[in-house]
Amino acid sequence: PGKAKDKIVNVGKSIKKLGKDDPRRVIHSLKVGLALTLVSLFYYLKPLYDGFGMSGMWAVLTVVVVFEFSVGATLGKGINRACATLSAAALGVGSLHLSSLFGKEGEPIVLGFLVFLLAAAATFTRFFPKIKARYDYGVIIFILTFSMISISGYRVDSLLEMAHQRLSTILIGGATCIFISIFVCPVWAGQDLHNFIASNIEKLANYLEGFGGEYFQVTEDKDSGGDSKKDKSFLQGYKSVLNSKTTEEALANFAKWEPGHGRFLFRHPWKQYLKIGALVRQCAYQIEALNSHLTSDMQTPPEFTRVIQESCINMSSESGKALKSLSSAIKSMKHPNSATQRVENSKTAVNDLKAALEAAAIEDSDLLAIISAATVASTLFEIVECVEKISESVH
Amino acid sequence: PGKAKDKIVNVGKSIKKLGKDDPRRVIHSLKVGLALTLVSLFYYLKPLYDGFGMSGMWAVLTVVVVFEFSVGATLGKGINRACATLSAAALGVGSLHLSSLFGKEGEPIVLGFLVFLLAAAATFTRFFPKIKARYDYGVIIFILTFSMISISGYRVDSLLEMAHQRLSTILIGGATCIFISIFVCPVWAGQDLHNFIASNIEKLANYLEGFGGEYFQVTEDKDSGGDSKKDKSFLQGYKSVLNSKTTEEALANFAKWEPGHGRFLFRHPWKQYLKIGALVRQCAYQIEALNSHLTSDMQTPPEFTRVIQESCINMSSESGKALKSLSSAIKSMKHPNSATQRVENSKTAVNDLKAALEAAAIEDSDLLAIISAATVASTLFEIVECVEKISESVH
Repeated sequence: PGKAKDKIVNVGKSIKKLGKDDPRRVIHSLKVGLALTLVSLFYYLKPLYDGFGMSGMWAVLTVVVVFEFSVGATLGKGINRACATLSAAALGVGSLHLSSLFGKEGEPIVLGFLVFLLAAAATFTRFFPKIKARYDYGVIIFILTFSMISISGYRVDSLLEMAHQRLSTILIGGATCIFISIFVCPVWAGQDLHNFIASNIEKLANYLEGFGGEYFQVTEDKDSGGDSKKDKSFLQGYKSVLNSKTTEEALANFAKWEPGHGRFLFRHPWKQYLKIGALVRQCAYQIEALNSHLTSDMQTPPEFTRVIQESCINMSSESGKALKSLSSAIKSMKHPNSATQRVENSKTAVNDLKAALEAAAIEDSDLLAIISAATVASTLFEIVECVEKISESVH
Repeated sequence: PGKAKDKIVNVGKSIKKLGKDDPRRVIHSLKVGLALTLVSLFYYLKPLYDGFGMSGMWAVLTVVVVFEFSVGATLGKGINRACATLSAAALGVGSLHLSSLFGKEGEPIVLGFLVFLLAAAATFTRFFPKIKARYDYGVIIFILTFSMISISGYRVDSLLEMAHQRLSTILIGGATCIFISIFVCPVWAGQDLHNFIASNIEKLANYLEGFGGEYFQVTEDKDSGGDSKKDKSFLQGYKSVLNSKTTEEALANFAKWEPGHGRFLFRHPWKQYLKIGALVRQCAYQIEALNSHLTSDMQTPPEFTRVIQESCINMSSESGKALKSLSSAIKSMKHPNSATQRVENSKTAVNDLKAALEAAAIEDSDLLAIISAATVASTLFEIVECVEKISESVH
């Protein structure tokens, strides 16, 4: 019983954490409940029920399937569903007429053949990456509606009335979803994408700002050795950036459906975000390579450390600061003036180091010992280049 | 008109390419068509129609929504749908009984409240990453079925008969999907995951095998300069590995649903694949860092090149060969004996280089000039380590 209690407490904790991490999740759950309750009025209120009958069920179905976390996803699904239902209904009615030309015997055969043909063709289009990304749901609904109409139309006589009722309830369900998702605490995918990119840049910035001190062990808290562990989380933050591609692409796809909101206009250049995201990932890969040298146990000879330490710390912290000001510039949507200066600073540091390396004549020094530190320096060169590219693309 | 013709030709070409790249796509499309046609027999054949009536529609709906590309995905959705429908139906009937205790006035209010509560709670569980990964569809169907039953039950009198008809048609639809997906040219997600990992390792292997020659420009086809461009595609192959995480996780999730097939037993250790995949990605990040030095225009002094060239080429090609034999060992599911030897070889090369670097006393050499080559060497150290880890985890 103690174990079961522990488990319940754990589940409770993770529920609380989930809600605290992003309170919009709780709100979203309530919104779905609200939309369903609104739609179920179709059944409870007699006058409405008399109008729609069992078709009210389709409004419920639509709400459950269409309502998504962000406005973009909801709109995308709603529009997909509406367009697919309309076009499939038209085609379905057409194919019913066509098949009726073949007589009582031929009708089901022709209908079956048409369903087979369209379902196979539509399923195949789902493999196109572009259709998969934006219209996947629409294609499914298309197949669904077309086969339902052409199959059940064979038995149901009041087809047009049924189609009319179903269409209007689907529209009502979809409209309810879209209305609630836009006007009750909306979650904009575009805004999310914007913040996601900014916070990814910030994660890299945190790493770079801290890296110099960490690598050369010039931490101020030398006395309190045990205490230094707690603030090393910044060294792990960048890892989530490595796999950010899928999230970014999904958000950008949703954002394309959204109308203008806040500081974003309709047709905001969402593709630009994907470009920045790719550059940021590029930078994160370099940081990953850098990171493997943090734990290296090779001792760099102090004479070499003296040559590179200052400019390496400068490169790393200046490019980190450049990223930080880029990130806050993105957040406030202002022109990143200070970032340009920081990038210049880090480029100066690169040149300093290059000059120092050229000048440094280390006599019969152990090349193996300096190789790790040299790699750090050269990876930092690459990072400065990346940061410059990011800075350019943000403008 | 010429333009429109071009477009049509282009679309035709991309359809052909899509089908050629993976002929299973065409077969899958035909399978969906077949399943739909089978299920539509419910309508066309009079005796069956008399048994199920309009509920036959639910079989169509189930087929369209449940049928997925791989067996695992189809099974997962089918099982999710069946379990969710059953539990939601039980809960729905229960809540109908409960609400009927509150009299004609109170019933819709209590029902509405219950729908709101359950929909909100179930929607919230969708935010748990584990539930999202494996049971997302089940939760949606749960909400759908529960609200439909508790809402329409308020109006429909023959509730139990309706529920019975609907359940059996859903089961028939789901069973049709599962049957066809398993017995007609099955696509196993587990097999796909297996091949995916093996081909990713091979991509890295191709890169590493070619890298040494590429970096030190010791290509044999010096004479035919124009011809050398065509075989450089191996330098790009590794890029797709960088973003492989999502695909691997999705495939592993599907694979968990699959029964034993071919050389895979049920409960095959799919998690192990994810671990190998993560290590492979780690290696790909290092290769990405390596790759930025291929285009570097810095001239390495020949005296330094002489020191590192042989062992660098050895490290790179031996670790490439190690990966290649790992990949083919995975493909044939045999013990990778030769890989161990290759890993040993590459470790020897690492030690050779380390010794050479220690011995090499390059007098007043330009440190800046050698830094890029030194980075290549040190990154290759890391790669050899990665390859060793991959080799260990494959065993």
